[in-house]
Amino acid sequence: MKRAGSIANNWASSDALKHALAQRGGRRAALEDAIRSAIRSNRLRPSDPLPSSRALARELALARGTVAEAYAQLTAEGYLTARPGGTTRVAAGGATADATGTTVATAAARLPFTLEVGVPDVSAFPRAAWSTAMRRALRTAPSPRLALGDPRGAGELRDALAGHLRRTRGVVVDAGQVVITCGFSHGLAILCRTLRGSGLDCLAMEDPCLDSHRTIATGAGLRVVPLEVDEQGATAEPPPGTRALLLTPAHQFPLGMTLAPGRRTALIGWANAHDGLIVEDDYDGEYRYDHQPVGALQGLAPDRVIYAGTVSKTLAPALRLGWLVVPPRLLEPTVATKGLLGAEPSAIEQLTMAELLQSGAYDRHVRRTRLRYRHRRDRLLELLSEHAPELTPRGIAAGLHVLLDLPSGVSEDGLVDGAAAAGLALNALGPFWHDSAGRPGGLTIGYAAAPDHAYEQSLAVLAEVLRPTTVRFRRCARPT
Amino acid sequence: MKRAGSIANNWASSDALKHALAQRGGRRAALEDAIRSAIRSNRLRPSDPLPSSRALARELALARGTVAEAYAQLTAEGYLTARPGGTTRVAAGGATADATGTTVATAAARLPFTLEVGVPDVSAFPRAAWSTAMRRALRTAPSPRLALGDPRGAGELRDALAGHLRRTRGVVVDAGQVVITCGFSHGLAILCRTLRGSGLDCLAMEDPCLDSHRTIATGAGLRVVPLEVDEQGATAEPPPGTRALLLTPAHQFPLGMTLAPGRRTALIGWANAHDGLIVEDDYDGEYRYDHQPVGALQGLAPDRVIYAGTVSKTLAPALRLGWLVVPPRLLEPTVATKGLLGAEPSAIEQLTMAELLQSGAYDRHVRRTRLRYRHRRDRLLELLSEHAPELTPRGIAAGLHVLLDLPSGVSEDGLVDGAAAAGLALNALGPFWHDSAGRPGGLTIGYAAAPDHAYEQSLAVLAEVLRPTTVRFRRCARPT
Repeated sequence: MKRAGSIANNWASSDALKHALAQRGGRRAALEDAIRSAIRSNRLRPSDPLPSSRALARELALARGTVAEAYAQLTAEGYLTARPGGTTRVAAGGATADATGTTVATAAARLPFTLEVGVPDVSAFPRAAWSTAMRRALRTAPSPRLALGDPRGAGELRDALAGHLRRTRGVVVDAGQVVITCGFSHGLAILCRTLRGSGLDCLAMEDPCLDSHRTIATGAGLRVVPLEVDEQGATAEPPPGTRALLLTPAHQFPLGMTLAPGRRTALIGWANAHDGLIVEDDYDGEYRYDHQPVGALQGLAPDRVIYAGTVSKTLAPALRLGWLVVPPRLLEPTVATKGLLGAEPSAIEQLTMAELLQSGAYDRHVRRTRLRYRHRRDRLLELLSEHAPELTPRGIAAGLHVLLDLPSGVSEDGLVDGAAAAGLALNALGPFWHDSAGRPGGLTIGYAAAPDHAYEQSLAVLAEVLRPTTVRFRRCARPT
Repeated sequence: MKRAGSIANNWASSDALKHALAQRGGRRAALEDAIRSAIRSNRLRPSDPLPSSRALARELALARGTVAEAYAQLTAEGYLTARPGGTTRVAAGGATADATGTTVATAAARLPFTLEVGVPDVSAFPRAAWSTAMRRALRTAPSPRLALGDPRGAGELRDALAGHLRRTRGVVVDAGQVVITCGFSHGLAILCRTLRGSGLDCLAMEDPCLDSHRTIATGAGLRVVPLEVDEQGATAEPPPGTRALLLTPAHQFPLGMTLAPGRRTALIGWANAHDGLIVEDDYDGEYRYDHQPVGALQGLAPDRVIYAGTVSKTLAPALRLGWLVVPPRLLEPTVATKGLLGAEPSAIEQLTMAELLQSGAYDRHVRRTRLRYRHRRDRLLELLSEHAPELTPRGIAAGLHVLLDLPSGVSEDGLVDGAAAAGLALNALGPFWHDSAGRPGGLTIGYAAAPDHAYEQSLAVLAEVLRPTTVRFRRCARPT
């Protein structure tokens, strides 16, 4: 907690809030507006705890349900975050990710310009190809495919994926090992519980990594420990006692390096020596621009690595479709755990995706978007070299974002706030550290999120936002 | 465990098995065939534990992975069941449900005739209407709908459902309280963890109830206690200390009665007196034939009842689409728990369903299938009164199945096996009891599962199967 809860309590009992409520029509809408406004104006700041709905209801003489609904609405909008049984807090500044690992519609996301990370250009979603594939799947699927089938997922999709992953990512896989999920977060929720069930109590996660993944692992009852990342990627020295790692080998999230060959060997060596398991989050492995594609880590040790992929970056996050490739000895418990969580993507969607893979439409779409994102990356690098030549972007060879280290003394939150004020959604590096205290500041620049028509303007705003930083940079020492 | 594990061990070390393996091509395929054949021929019987994959691999000089993959394949086919970290066993006879609460493709499901419960006629799925709605949704959805949005689910669908549920089921609901799920099992997995998070450790479930729901609750860390059911439905006396119940008020599963008005009042009274919560599983509430629809229990106490619905019976189970209506005070923790499990249906599917509701196509489909299932029920009752007049079917006023009590001394497993031998998939009542010891036997007859062309023949096989029972019945006392 960055500041005392009393600030939020002071806000709750302020005359301004009561005045706002008295002025407006619907009390719930008025309360929502008042909270939004307090957050936008920084009277409530990121991580500030809000009073319990019961306490605030008493304070404001509202029904508790009214307050709870307002909190839920604002949580849905990304202004607030809630944990089961825990305190409701103001969400991290800028865009925020909810516990699903899914960026929710946030205050920032409604800004006109965006360079957020973790989101592809959904305006490029191949609607016509998807619609054609869906109609074909629906026309040809025998009726029993609409009843429940194989708990691993539709055989057609598992077959098509196995071929695709062998061909494009060097994954060593038989269709029998593929387990279809509702996206990576769901796969991680399944795996964490499977690990727990097999007696593991701890998961090492790269530091930094996606914060919502830490939340999911903790929510599954695992202790999360940091795994250091250097310029070669994750180090091969997990804390003693650790037997499971979550890695992003293709393009470290969010720092952007590719896991070095020597590190790959060392990490597999660690796994073999410690009866360890590595979960490979191949979230944007399809996008590599400068070299030959780097194969999946799984190909080096199919018995030690669980490979996880998703269409969230290649097609659209809202499809909620992903897959795990599971070593045979873990297949039964993984499928059983999936059953206990009760979720699976629609068979129609699974068959549609199988059709998209089989027809070649998926490959064509990935190639098309790869070219497009490469152009965007080149434009971004051009702009940075022109307007912020002192800031060297990292992680440019692959993926959908780059990282900018910030000079010491430059506040990443200040830049994110400044960008938001200028209408641009940006992500700071801070929330991705396990503990950001003492860590250098940075900005992650996602060049995929904006639709085409807004990309150039998003870059122009970024140049504006970075201008004082680079001026300052010229006066400062470069951070080590 | 019904019989000693040594039987499976004897089977594992039998010459017959080794002979089968030596004869065949692929060793994994051969092992699968040998296990299937042992189950079909009753050498391995329901609930028999199998040797661990390690032990069987040693016994047969196979790679452990080969055995694990064979077990996974047979689990997927429904021959075997596996629990995380537990023993692999032969699945219950006839159809079996996996831990998702979802009937998997089973040995029985591949029989030519079926009167299984829990499955609608998927050949009646409105493919054309779904395809039209999907294309419209895909044509009209703004791109940001393909990025992640409200963690409760798509607003369009929550709005459409709120109206639909108010109108057709008397649910007291605002769209803000609707949480979209990947079907009832997913909703139950979310709710059980939400209850745990709020300090509850126990869930009372009707006795009998769907066995896979017990598995999901136990898997979420709840203790499951039985709630007695009499001819008026669930009793209003949960064991002391219980504060949460799972009920099927519209059509008790599997016994079939509608929860009596007095019982509804008494259960709400219990909830108010004990700060209790009731989860209302309205799994087939759309199907009522003889009276005015009975409204949802939730309408009597919207603050005490969490309403749960699904398209699994009205459209198709493989859509994996359901919804919860959550009291406002539970909304935040429920949404947060949903986030921790990481799953949600595809936005395209959610928007398609919204379109189907808004266009009236869903209502038309439900009316059409209601008429059709009513005709099927009438045919079933006709046949029973002709061929098994001593067996009074229960639960005929609603839903998609009836229950036949069996005379004492008649083995339900024997009938299910006999039916399977004649090509008919049937479900015994036994697995639905928390503990079937001392409980009367019964058969559940699902009249929705078969496609139209196979329904009459399924009934004809049923008449054959029941013939010796009714002869025997004439010699026996009726069970009390």
